[in-house]
Amino acid sequence: MKLNIAVLSGDGIGPEVTAQAIKTLNAVADVYNHTFTFKEALAGAIAIDKTGDPLPQETLDLCLEYDAVLFGAIGDPKYDNDPSAKVRPEQGLLKLRKSLGLFTNIRPIKAYPTLIDKSPLKRDRIEGTDLTIYRELTGGIYFGEKKLNEQGTIASDLCEYSEKEIERIAHLAFKAARNRKKKLTLVDKANVLETSRLWRKVVTNIGKSYEDVELDYLFVDNAAMQLILNPSQFDVILTENMFGDIISDEGSVIGGSIGLLASASVGDENAMFEPIHGSFPQAKGKNIANPVASILSAAMLLEHFGLNEEAQAINKAVDKSLEMKIVTTDLNPDSQYGTEQVGDFIADYIAHAE
Amino acid sequence: MKLNIAVLSGDGIGPEVTAQAIKTLNAVADVYNHTFTFKEALAGAIAIDKTGDPLPQETLDLCLEYDAVLFGAIGDPKYDNDPSAKVRPEQGLLKLRKSLGLFTNIRPIKAYPTLIDKSPLKRDRIEGTDLTIYRELTGGIYFGEKKLNEQGTIASDLCEYSEKEIERIAHLAFKAARNRKKKLTLVDKANVLETSRLWRKVVTNIGKSYEDVELDYLFVDNAAMQLILNPSQFDVILTENMFGDIISDEGSVIGGSIGLLASASVGDENAMFEPIHGSFPQAKGKNIANPVASILSAAMLLEHFGLNEEAQAINKAVDKSLEMKIVTTDLNPDSQYGTEQVGDFIADYIAHAE
Ligand SMILES: [Mg+2]
Ligand SMILES: [Mg+2]
Repeated sequence: MKLNIAVLSGDGIGPEVTAQAIKTLNAVADVYNHTFTFKEALAGAIAIDKTGDPLPQETLDLCLEYDAVLFGAIGDPKYDNDPSAKVRPEQGLLKLRKSLGLFTNIRPIKAYPTLIDKSPLKRDRIEGTDLTIYRELTGGIYFGEKKLNEQGTIASDLCEYSEKEIERIAHLAFKAARNRKKKLTLVDKANVLETSRLWRKVVTNIGKSYEDVELDYLFVDNAAMQLILNPSQFDVILTENMFGDIISDEGSVIGGSIGLLASASVGDENAMFEPIHGSFPQAKGKNIANPVASILSAAMLLEHFGLNEEAQAINKAVDKSLEMKIVTTDLNPDSQYGTEQVGDFIADYIAHAE
Repeated sequence: MKLNIAVLSGDGIGPEVTAQAIKTLNAVADVYNHTFTFKEALAGAIAIDKTGDPLPQETLDLCLEYDAVLFGAIGDPKYDNDPSAKVRPEQGLLKLRKSLGLFTNIRPIKAYPTLIDKSPLKRDRIEGTDLTIYRELTGGIYFGEKKLNEQGTIASDLCEYSEKEIERIAHLAFKAARNRKKKLTLVDKANVLETSRLWRKVVTNIGKSYEDVELDYLFVDNAAMQLILNPSQFDVILTENMFGDIISDEGSVIGGSIGLLASASVGDENAMFEPIHGSFPQAKGKNIANPVASILSAAMLLEHFGLNEEAQAINKAVDKSLEMKIVTTDLNPDSQYGTEQVGDFIADYIAHAE
């Protein structure tokens, strides 16, 4: 397969972790005979520094033209600490998501056997956890009409959803469940909210065309409990924008390390893959940043294009690196391995696995 | 002090746990020279059985007239499993909350040293946790205008808040913080929602009259993480209705036992106190239900009327019962003690403490 991949490595540790993801993808291309073409473009603070714009038109054009975007991280303290700054790195990311029409955010959460002791949850709770959250990303209350009366004493936000918005993400989630443990849990608040009742109706209808997938429903307050009490019960969780924001951030801490968490943001025409961690400017250039989240984002990219075996090769190599303790110091303070060495190990393992 | 307390012990284990709370309050009345008058009224399934109405007018009148309501639990499987049932026990509770104007729900969450091993969180995470959540209960998206277009393809829910709605609960929360660890955390999503920005403005303003209370702010997605990562950082959490629903249910599982969790629902004129657990019909009449949540609800009742020393006497007696393992079988499967015996111990301890 030929894939043109736009690389927006961004700020802080973004470039060094993204370099390991590219290294890994190159190993995959070699072994499986694919042609992956990478082209780097500016985004974030570095783009402001060089062009004044956190998302230059040239970058946006490249992302629109290419098959996928591999994203690093953006953000720089010099903008965070300057309240007078009119342009901020993060604006580039919001504009990019919107311009690419990325309506689904996908966040896998997994308990790695060797890392369970790092989880805030006890071993017996977290063991066996392997779930993925499909969060609607462009609708709901975050994007609905906002009002404030003239006196500034009454405010409102409108949460709105259409059948169409629900259908498109529901199909993605059902398809994912079909390739996994065949279970989909819709998280909503259908006992109270009209939008949740629409979600439930639409998702139930779509579920009829995915007979092999078991569909169940959970109220969001209960889901927030179940995610702590028994996270291994879940396979695919599907939910609206705000519930997904809360639930996926809650879920991100149960695995024990944010340095391993990848994400995808997907639309009809475009897709972007990025670690959920930030630009971690203090670690920049020190060869200490954990590249695994970025490497697993690359695996999600492959999966997105149906290259499941290739994605599995990356996942297995990552499992092996954890098992063999070839990890950065965030996971093992005594480790001798840096960003680069972890990336090398994973790429080599893929290259030499039979 | 004279207090007239309406007792709605309801269904399932409601009557037996509430009886222990009354026993405890009677011990307090003896020791501290108060006059507590109790009057029982019907609510829930038992009220439907006897009158056809889950909240008979007589019950409502009593609650409105009396100083406080001590509530047990309602719900019966014979209504849950009958989809054709037009009257449901839970409707009585909703109507009662509304009729009494209870706009604030208060949920304390505490890690009891002897129960930490029951928590899904590791000991070092949960140790020292003692927080309370103030959740707005009558506004926000659960009560805002709901719409569904004629074709049934577009739905919406409106989240609305007024300055006044925020002010009244904010004062209660600041006063609570003043009597506790003097820290208040407003949980909102002010980076996105107009209503959250109004919350932030109003609460910040009110905070100026509570200079001894430290005020900080947390986005709800981050709060959902922090509650797992480091719950002991919190003292009083103040939040709107839906965020409070999610966060307080999430918080309810971190302590390790739902059988200990009390709650209060408070308005300008009325207040109601109840365990957060349900009617647990399978345990009805078996003398196995944990009465502690109901007893701690009685302590919240006393605190509500400024009887802090008396409330503390109950809390101490409960601590002692846990320490001495005078607990029901949910907390210790080998326990010889039942509902009644745990209530006796706690009441006796109060009666004989010097
Ligand atoms: Mg978030
Ligand atoms: Mg709830």
